[in-house]
Amino acid sequence: MMSSPQAAIEYVMTHQTHYLQKLIEFLRIPSVGTSPAHRADMERAAQWLASFMEYIGLHSVQLISTDLHPVVYGAWGPEDPETPTLLVYGHYDVQPADPEEQWHTPPFEPTIQDGKIYARGASDDKGQLLAHLIAAEAYLRTSGKLPINLKFFIEGQEECGSTGLEDIIQQHRALLTCDAVAISDDGFWDATTPKITIGTRGLVYFEVDIRGPRHDLHSGTYGGAVHNPLQVAAEMIAQLHDAQGRVAIPGFYEHVQPLSAEERYELERIPFDEERFLHEEIGAPALWLGELGYSLRERITARPTLEIHGIRGGFVAEGQKTVIPAEATIKLSMRLVPDQDPLEIAHLFEEHIRRIAPPTVRVSVRLLSHAYPALIDRHAPAIQAAVEAYHLGFGTRPVFLRTGGTLPVVADFMRILQVPVVMMGFGLPDDNLHAPNEKLSLAQFFGGIRTAIHFMECLAQQLSSL
Amino acid sequence: MMSSPQAAIEYVMTHQTHYLQKLIEFLRIPSVGTSPAHRADMERAAQWLASFMEYIGLHSVQLISTDLHPVVYGAWGPEDPETPTLLVYGHYDVQPADPEEQWHTPPFEPTIQDGKIYARGASDDKGQLLAHLIAAEAYLRTSGKLPINLKFFIEGQEECGSTGLEDIIQQHRALLTCDAVAISDDGFWDATTPKITIGTRGLVYFEVDIRGPRHDLHSGTYGGAVHNPLQVAAEMIAQLHDAQGRVAIPGFYEHVQPLSAEERYELERIPFDEERFLHEEIGAPALWLGELGYSLRERITARPTLEIHGIRGGFVAEGQKTVIPAEATIKLSMRLVPDQDPLEIAHLFEEHIRRIAPPTVRVSVRLLSHAYPALIDRHAPAIQAAVEAYHLGFGTRPVFLRTGGTLPVVADFMRILQVPVVMMGFGLPDDNLHAPNEKLSLAQFFGGIRTAIHFMECLAQQLSSL
Repeated sequence: MMSSPQAAIEYVMTHQTHYLQKLIEFLRIPSVGTSPAHRADMERAAQWLASFMEYIGLHSVQLISTDLHPVVYGAWGPEDPETPTLLVYGHYDVQPADPEEQWHTPPFEPTIQDGKIYARGASDDKGQLLAHLIAAEAYLRTSGKLPINLKFFIEGQEECGSTGLEDIIQQHRALLTCDAVAISDDGFWDATTPKITIGTRGLVYFEVDIRGPRHDLHSGTYGGAVHNPLQVAAEMIAQLHDAQGRVAIPGFYEHVQPLSAEERYELERIPFDEERFLHEEIGAPALWLGELGYSLRERITARPTLEIHGIRGGFVAEGQKTVIPAEATIKLSMRLVPDQDPLEIAHLFEEHIRRIAPPTVRVSVRLLSHAYPALIDRHAPAIQAAVEAYHLGFGTRPVFLRTGGTLPVVADFMRILQVPVVMMGFGLPDDNLHAPNEKLSLAQFFGGIRTAIHFMECLAQQLSSL
Repeated sequence: MMSSPQAAIEYVMTHQTHYLQKLIEFLRIPSVGTSPAHRADMERAAQWLASFMEYIGLHSVQLISTDLHPVVYGAWGPEDPETPTLLVYGHYDVQPADPEEQWHTPPFEPTIQDGKIYARGASDDKGQLLAHLIAAEAYLRTSGKLPINLKFFIEGQEECGSTGLEDIIQQHRALLTCDAVAISDDGFWDATTPKITIGTRGLVYFEVDIRGPRHDLHSGTYGGAVHNPLQVAAEMIAQLHDAQGRVAIPGFYEHVQPLSAEERYELERIPFDEERFLHEEIGAPALWLGELGYSLRERITARPTLEIHGIRGGFVAEGQKTVIPAEATIKLSMRLVPDQDPLEIAHLFEEHIRRIAPPTVRVSVRLLSHAYPALIDRHAPAIQAAVEAYHLGFGTRPVFLRTGGTLPVVADFMRILQVPVVMMGFGLPDDNLHAPNEKLSLAQFFGGIRTAIHFMECLAQQLSSL
């Protein structure tokens, strides 16, 4: 007798055309969440998802309203405390398609060529989230039930920065109770190697205002008497890193978790071409040595950093103006890693700024936003279940990597629901996310469905055996 | 028998209404040189001046054409090499009048109230230059000749930065041959104390480009691998001053003339309220100590400085963007003092920048403009003649001061014609130059005419006695 996952996979294979049709239907809806002109399309996309959830047989299907676009929720299962529960997160909003003239096929007319489907949202994230819904459907059609309890939480504001999502999760945390969260909104490490992202960096974003004279002054008349706020800004920025490239804020590194020997070993094992990275991706004359004592890949993913994004003030147009500006504003942010607490770091930064600010200016610091870093224990049963599922679904074991970017939703789920988040993407590095000609390989799409089917089974085994 | 200057002064006093009428005629022409809409008015103003010169009895009256508005030239005298020659410089173009709604009387309807004439250009510079023309007329009407040879060189592009004037002076240097240049385009030190400006600062204006990655990068993905061009800019700016507030470019001070004991003594004698300067003019929390070992007033006039005017690059709008910019551009200038050579300083700056630029970026330096500093020997006979003329014209001896600003025309006259420039203004500090409600006190106007009359006589005596 065929195992339940195998039966579900066979079902998907014999209904490929049907599922592709569903994907095409979903991709046809131009659900650009940032554009007021697409408001009705966003509603259509949410309704389409809710209908698909009901068609599959999920219960409690509902639109959870937010300030803008609703979250689509649906669940399967009796929530038997003996059976583990998985929450699948995804998003139905997509990036704008512009510049449209650079698309070879219309962005909202999904087109299949050479085994790939081209459309805005194909990889990010409609194709990937649909893989989980299709996995559930095929499992239900073939076995009548799932090996786990399953919940879907599909938002419509990811491309707007998931504003307010933390509050929504907080308010609905009883509804969202689970043993693990899965997010497929990411990709493979390379064309053949799956990746599980086990770390994200946090963020604190600041504006520092430096006010000197009451109004702009003429450098001929006042040059030599006034501490130029732009000069002060530069001199303060120069005190934010030490000569070894370390962030010079006292206490900044105190709670940084060092990389485990295991993680360092694995990082070195994964091939990475620094020369190609420098010349093809960056294009600067040389890599920055950055924080002394850490490899490039540690620095861009597992170590905290501080970046200056802009320095406002004075005259930057063409030509010459000999102004001493009244004010300068530094825009900067720090990427944080576990266990740095964004609010504690914000406090240390403010103290440092106050310490280094000269008495010739008035300085104020504004925290514009903060997000927590996240690190998922690679030994968590849910992660092990994903490793096994990838192996069964794609024939390859995934690598574990951290991303240098910030995904507030990951830390939010972890902190509020107190469960691990499994970032298991099916896309490929050349999917052209946020760019013209976004695509998803059909092999990845169906491999993703297979992996999602196995993941439910593996998760049931891993978590039930606890 | 009445002396010739006394007769000329009596003549002016009995014809006050006539001369005021001339000033009003001249001020009525809205000769805004920067505005294409006032092109015809600029022509009218130049023609008005030329006619006035001919009416006085000057010879060789002509419009010297430039790229934009002509210079008006006229002369008196046989150019007997035994008789000293004075060249009077002024400008007939005026600042735009906006914001016009802030004027209490129409800017081009000269209005006399409380002994002051309100109009755009009253003080800057029509009233002041006219004082010299009226002085010549009154002298000629009463004595039939002047005690010196006199030349007028009145330009129309001062408010546009006197573009191309250096070339014009160079091309016409034979016509402009003289023993001294007088410029009345300035004011008293305070309501009752005349001032002779004996120094102007030079200027070099630069843009420094710092190019890092090929295009803007995301700080999540690349933060830690790339030397952020804005951080590099800040770290380089921090190396342009040392901890003592000195400009840290090697060789920068090598040719700086120290202040003479006499100049230091005089500077200390002239009352100056630092607290008022700080709180009323600047409004910063504290004065900058600047270059250690020099008083505030030395620093803003007699010492060179370096100012940052703008730092372009990255994201400075409202909100948050986590960009590592591909490029940063620093706009900066240095004010120079005798005997710093702008081109040599430019070279030293470029060398310093090359020395401190890190290998992670490509740095280039562009010199946008340069102007020479000037220092006029206070013991020059022409300066002594002006001291005496002020004493006779206003009853007060002037103070000698340097300005921190840059007046390229002063250095140009000195370098090309090899003569001292006498900066003897008649305006007052509250004349609202470049602002609404510009005015000239009639007492200053007629005092200026008296001083200009005496100046010719004193100059003849001083220079003939050589």
